[in-house]
Amino acid sequence: MSNTTWNRHHVLSLADFITAEYDAVLQTAASFQEVLSRRTKKVPTLQGQVVANLFFEPSTRTRSSFEIAAKRLSADTLNFAAATSSMTKGETILDTAKTYLAMGTDIMVIRHREAGVPNAIAQEMDRLGVKVSVLNAGDGQHEHPSQALLDLFTICTLLDPAQPRIELLKGKKIAIVGDILHSRVARSNIWSFIASGAQLHLAAPPTLLPKLFTEYLSEEKDIQNNQLFLHWQLEPALQDADFVMTLRLQKERMTAHLLPSLREYHQLFGITRAKLQLCKPNVKVLHPGPVNRGVEISSDLMDDPEFSLIQSQVTSGVAVRMALLYLLGSGKSY
Amino acid sequence: MSNTTWNRHHVLSLADFITAEYDAVLQTAASFQEVLSRRTKKVPTLQGQVVANLFFEPSTRTRSSFEIAAKRLSADTLNFAAATSSMTKGETILDTAKTYLAMGTDIMVIRHREAGVPNAIAQEMDRLGVKVSVLNAGDGQHEHPSQALLDLFTICTLLDPAQPRIELLKGKKIAIVGDILHSRVARSNIWSFIASGAQLHLAAPPTLLPKLFTEYLSEEKDIQNNQLFLHWQLEPALQDADFVMTLRLQKERMTAHLLPSLREYHQLFGITRAKLQLCKPNVKVLHPGPVNRGVEISSDLMDDPEFSLIQSQVTSGVAVRMALLYLLGSGKSY
Amino acid sequence: MSNTTWNRHHVLSLADFITAEYDAVLQTAASFQEVLSRRTKKVPTLQGQVVANLFFEPSTRTRSSFEIAAKRLSADTLNFAAATSSMTKGETILDTAKTYLAMGTDIMVIRHREAGVPNAIAQEMDRLGVKVSVLNAGDGQHEHPSQALLDLFTICTLLDPAQPRIELLKGKKIAIVGDILHSRVARSNIWSFIASGAQLHLAAPPTLLPKLFTEYLSEEKDIQNNQLFLHWQLEPALQDADFVMTLRLQKERMTAHLLPSLREYHQLFGITRAKLQLCKPNVKVLHPGPVNRGVEISSDLMDDPEFSLIQSQVTSGVAVRMALLYLLGSGKSY
Repeated sequence: MSNTTWNRHHVLSLADFITAEYDAVLQTAASFQEVLSRRTKKVPTLQGQVVANLFFEPSTRTRSSFEIAAKRLSADTLNFAAATSSMTKGETILDTAKTYLAMGTDIMVIRHREAGVPNAIAQEMDRLGVKVSVLNAGDGQHEHPSQALLDLFTICTLLDPAQPRIELLKGKKIAIVGDILHSRVARSNIWSFIASGAQLHLAAPPTLLPKLFTEYLSEEKDIQNNQLFLHWQLEPALQDADFVMTLRLQKERMTAHLLPSLREYHQLFGITRAKLQLCKPNVKVLHPGPVNRGVEISSDLMDDPEFSLIQSQVTSGVAVRMALLYLLGSGKSY
Repeated sequence: MSNTTWNRHHVLSLADFITAEYDAVLQTAASFQEVLSRRTKKVPTLQGQVVANLFFEPSTRTRSSFEIAAKRLSADTLNFAAATSSMTKGETILDTAKTYLAMGTDIMVIRHREAGVPNAIAQEMDRLGVKVSVLNAGDGQHEHPSQALLDLFTICTLLDPAQPRIELLKGKKIAIVGDILHSRVARSNIWSFIASGAQLHLAAPPTLLPKLFTEYLSEEKDIQNNQLFLHWQLEPALQDADFVMTLRLQKERMTAHLLPSLREYHQLFGITRAKLQLCKPNVKVLHPGPVNRGVEISSDLMDDPEFSLIQSQVTSGVAVRMALLYLLGSGKSY
Repeated sequence: MSNTTWNRHHVLSLADFITAEYDAVLQTAASFQEVLSRRTKKVPTLQGQVVANLFFEPSTRTRSSFEIAAKRLSADTLNFAAATSSMTKGETILDTAKTYLAMGTDIMVIRHREAGVPNAIAQEMDRLGVKVSVLNAGDGQHEHPSQALLDLFTICTLLDPAQPRIELLKGKKIAIVGDILHSRVARSNIWSFIASGAQLHLAAPPTLLPKLFTEYLSEEKDIQNNQLFLHWQLEPALQDADFVMTLRLQKERMTAHLLPSLREYHQLFGITRAKLQLCKPNVKVLHPGPVNRGVEISSDLMDDPEFSLIQSQVTSGVAVRMALLYLLGSGKSY
């Protein structure tokens, strides 16, 4: 696990990730994947270090994944949940972060309802000249880099289990389907898939596409250099696709009148066995979870290991988060 | 700690437990009881394994007991609490369990408000062909096997500290008093005490007896082969009893008009020093906790170490849960 | 880390702390401070012991500080939060504590909304003849000894990093400013600072001074032997002060009409760079946190490392809590 190509101190966004960094994560995660298949799934790498999960927005899945990743690296973990915190006592978010810094936290894993909070905390840590690392675990509708990296790892590991690397995706057709407008996962995915040289096709009802893309809002548009395509309908995105990523549909969207009904949404954009006929024969389906069965994806397809990578994504999540904690944590000199 | 007689992969119910399995739990728990009396109360048995406490219903006592048991076996623990979970996001319980499976959980300890949930999860795990074990930590009004096993251990250890085994209870008279209708603890207790060859006497107001027993609903009835007796009054159950188990009375029952008043309940079915005169001189009292002092049992009796085994039950709980986690966890081959 | 001068079994209040005890805490904390500067910040001192954080009142800051302290001593930790507990099921606080005792807890760290709860639990433990130690982590408006000890450590370490000891404070002028009436922190601080031989000046609006002091309620009063002075205005307290401790102002106080407005409070009692001109040139400012920026202290002053010891207090907190857990935990003979 050499990390000669890793000089990054925080992981906040994939916007400026370079190939060598993607590959460092993929290769480190691959070696941890091997650790996870052993009987004793622990390594002493981060012994004595403290990973604080500062989740200002509730989460079980991502928080548990980071917690188990940290424990398998032998780090001590602290869980902070906004509900029971001093936040209600009027303390600012930066002050909360600085309190955890002063207690000796080495890595802060931060989720917040508002975009930019992990960035703001990272900037403050740098301004203070301290060595603590910040890892964005989802900020508003901005980014969710560890999710996109585990998606990438899941796909690349399928293509070459021994040597997952980003170039394996070059020329592959990947469809991202669903509520792209509100999805921090999609935003991070777009960065990594474009960087990989894949052809990325986004399919969503016009009400669920980012305003950023408004000028491109005509169907079948190639936005970026034969790499990024927009569709108002599912079919052209699925045509010959190698991978289909469905996104979680937040039911709150309905109340905002962005969608007619879950049933109609499923008919138009839900992934089913029948619709997969349009894709490449070996097509695989991904979903960041939690899934609304029968909405974004049909229930039987979700459970079919021939097509679904959903469970594999969760497992990859632990390996990828171990890799990120390792790359951020072990780089520290004392 | 040989476990040659242990082939069970899940602990969901005591209905089909055989003598050799009860004895495996009792003897393994006895050896852990010894560990717990040392200064360093840890053994490395489950190092690197992950025990996930999936408590869909809130609990402190049972959850803490499992957590401390897991930590003393050097396992890593994950705590899931329904309130802060993806459940609110529409994910099914099986999908939540599969997510924890995919993260690398080895043993799932599950509590749920509805009967049958741990069973359903165990079936799904078996269907998937995975090695994860499921331990029922209380499901609706169905069963609470680890509680009944710790009750059994508490009593058997009293009778023979060095070699607790189920046959020690043969011929003993055990009274279970209180809200049997709603008690998952009582259901599990009935299985283990019948299996032990004890004489089991249930005493409760008719409104708090299971409908299953309706056909037997005449006082002083021997239901099963001179082993299980039903009483509408306390006194015949207490007569010459060796052990008296009181059950927690949920105060909600009152609002459902199943009970006139707590005061009347205590007068009729509350255990007091005076009423214990009916029992054998060495009688002991148990309660699964938390206790409503002055309702199920008088306050001074609860605190009297000559009669009360209540504290001893809590301590036994840790040893028995270590035994269950050990028997489920160490059987795995890798 | 010899603890020949330490015979205390619980830490409930600083009222009867003697010099040797203060110094035992300070010197032990100093040696842990050194541990915390290493790459691997763990020592095996309390391996196999269980520290239960019984927080009947919500807290993140103090709970996290105790949790990290316990983990760095290699203890196992259990977190109890009142919200999800059996308390709602009608169990008494003493019974909850006894349950954790029976599970094998070695040290109970207790916070409760009502004064005296940690004392009551400690008394019950002693009555039972058990070795478990109780540590008061804040009880009502009574005391918060670990906070006062970390304040003491922060100041003494500044005066002599190698050998922090209480006599260093002799003759120093310390001002405590703000809501003294409702502050358990101030109550503990008063005991330790008086014991140190410092000159202690309390400044607060009359509505926020304890009724205990009513008879002394004329300005500029020396209450105790040239050591404790009361002021209704800030300026005489700041005059030539070596240290200024500001207290958190709970905004609820406003609704109780004890204060006109936050703005007026800041004008009269808020600490600013300008007001610090009255103090000694090297004056330092402390605050137990969380801070209402711009109320108790101006925002820029809080962040100025030349004056503010606030971050240093948080770091000291971990070392001091390690010291307390160590002194209570390692004294146990088995």
